[in-house]
Amino acid sequence: MNFENYIKEKKNLIEKTMDAILPAEDADPPIIHQAMRYSVFSGGKRLRPILMLATAEIFGMDHKNVLYTACSIELIHTFSLIHDDLPCIDNDDFRRGKPTCHKVYGEDIALLAGDALLVHAYKMILKNIEIKEIKKNTILLLFEEMTKCVDTENMLGGQIKDVIHEKPDDNVVAFLCSLYKQKTAALICAAIRAGAILAGAKKREIKALTKYGECIGLAFQITDDILDIMQDQRNEDRITYPGVVGLKKAKIDSEKLIKKAKKALSIFDNRAEFLIAMADFILSRQK
Amino acid sequence: MNFENYIKEKKNLIEKTMDAILPAEDADPPIIHQAMRYSVFSGGKRLRPILMLATAEIFGMDHKNVLYTACSIELIHTFSLIHDDLPCIDNDDFRRGKPTCHKVYGEDIALLAGDALLVHAYKMILKNIEIKEIKKNTILLLFEEMTKCVDTENMLGGQIKDVIHEKPDDNVVAFLCSLYKQKTAALICAAIRAGAILAGAKKREIKALTKYGECIGLAFQITDDILDIMQDQRNEDRITYPGVVGLKKAKIDSEKLIKKAKKALSIFDNRAEFLIAMADFILSRQK
Repeated sequence: MNFENYIKEKKNLIEKTMDAILPAEDADPPIIHQAMRYSVFSGGKRLRPILMLATAEIFGMDHKNVLYTACSIELIHTFSLIHDDLPCIDNDDFRRGKPTCHKVYGEDIALLAGDALLVHAYKMILKNIEIKEIKKNTILLLFEEMTKCVDTENMLGGQIKDVIHEKPDDNVVAFLCSLYKQKTAALICAAIRAGAILAGAKKREIKALTKYGECIGLAFQITDDILDIMQDQRNEDRITYPGVVGLKKAKIDSEKLIKKAKKALSIFDNRAEFLIAMADFILSRQK
Repeated sequence: MNFENYIKEKKNLIEKTMDAILPAEDADPPIIHQAMRYSVFSGGKRLRPILMLATAEIFGMDHKNVLYTACSIELIHTFSLIHDDLPCIDNDDFRRGKPTCHKVYGEDIALLAGDALLVHAYKMILKNIEIKEIKKNTILLLFEEMTKCVDTENMLGGQIKDVIHEKPDDNVVAFLCSLYKQKTAALICAAIRAGAILAGAKKREIKALTKYGECIGLAFQITDDILDIMQDQRNEDRITYPGVVGLKKAKIDSEKLIKKAKKALSIFDNRAEFLIAMADFILSRQK
């Protein structure tokens, strides 16, 4: 199967599952469920859940055992976008070309819809109990991944540093790498690790996949910042990797990261072909 | 032991544990951990965790096996208060006589501190893995309680109805009881049920305790509204139980609920004496 079709097929599968597991638009009280669904279905490449499915696939794990957890990571991602877009944080009116959740439903509903998506993400982890192939111990490991990647050492810590425009003391590049790991790579890494955990991967396999996840996560955020600068959408208050090292070096460094990511997968031989294609996709992607 | 000392002892135990399990004030990034701690330690009667400890005690369960879960419910409660107080929801400047989280730290930090407390609450459930007396299956049951009580069928659904000032079609009292169950009783009930689940209570025991929890939860919210009216702090946009049936009938009805709650505990004979005292305390409490 070619890469575009692979992505398309996985995306369909994930979106169909999310449609099935989210409360209906008319479930009481309708307004919050409409807001949740509005944000979940406002585009999005579904990168994180696709990475999870592709990782589990390396070990021959059937997609049906991965889909609830794949939805969980996408709901966590959507929760973070809704809260990030709020007037008190980034104050964004548009995302992916569509009005943000609070522009359509109001700040109050958007705030609570974000909260509800986070809770629903954890309910999805719990729903794995229904799948007899998944052990209870595995579900607890998934909970660990899905709480750790959001906590103040990771995603929320990164968001805080963005919000307060924290400036580094000396080593700006090291500071930015650590920030990008928190705010972006942590969630991408958790998606990949969760796929490996579900599929019963061995310790050294999880280690290699974690390395891959960290590298593509960093490259993803650097590419994001490069695209912002090229599309003249940079936020002047925010220090970014290309803003510090220049566009040219930022591009070279993100290419190096992708190379490193692919190298980490060498232990899987050709079983990781789609993860390798995903790494290249991250470099070439448009917003 | 008398009731006041009992409450005081449990409160100390819970606050000591919360101090131990929350990230330190200087943990990176400090500002969010300061905001989390500010709200968690800004007073509060610790009603929900005390109810959990008292419930587990009926079955002879040692407090040390309950404390992580007790902290979890209090962190969920604090998360809901921080988000509720935000300008886009209730816009409250003070809570328990102290400036609200966003008045001290700003809306952005308060929003993310609320998110972080919710995530940390789930991390506390996971921390039960360290306690060898607690089975993995029990931890999954606790996750179920702690996600269900927050979801859009419960707490978040109630908050939404408050926010949109939903008006009932016909039966106002039934509408209010259902709203109060969602926004208040669900969390109180979850605290009690989690205590019972941790202690390995039987089905009919959990059923009796759930009845107790629902009744005291409703009585708690009615009493809250009565106190608001008596202290002239009512919100004119919001329909409340005493606002609809009058102060006198509201008081009578909350007394009836407390009576019903205590009756549900009769299967425990005198083992539930502190839960019975807690029910009376809810009626007599001041804000």
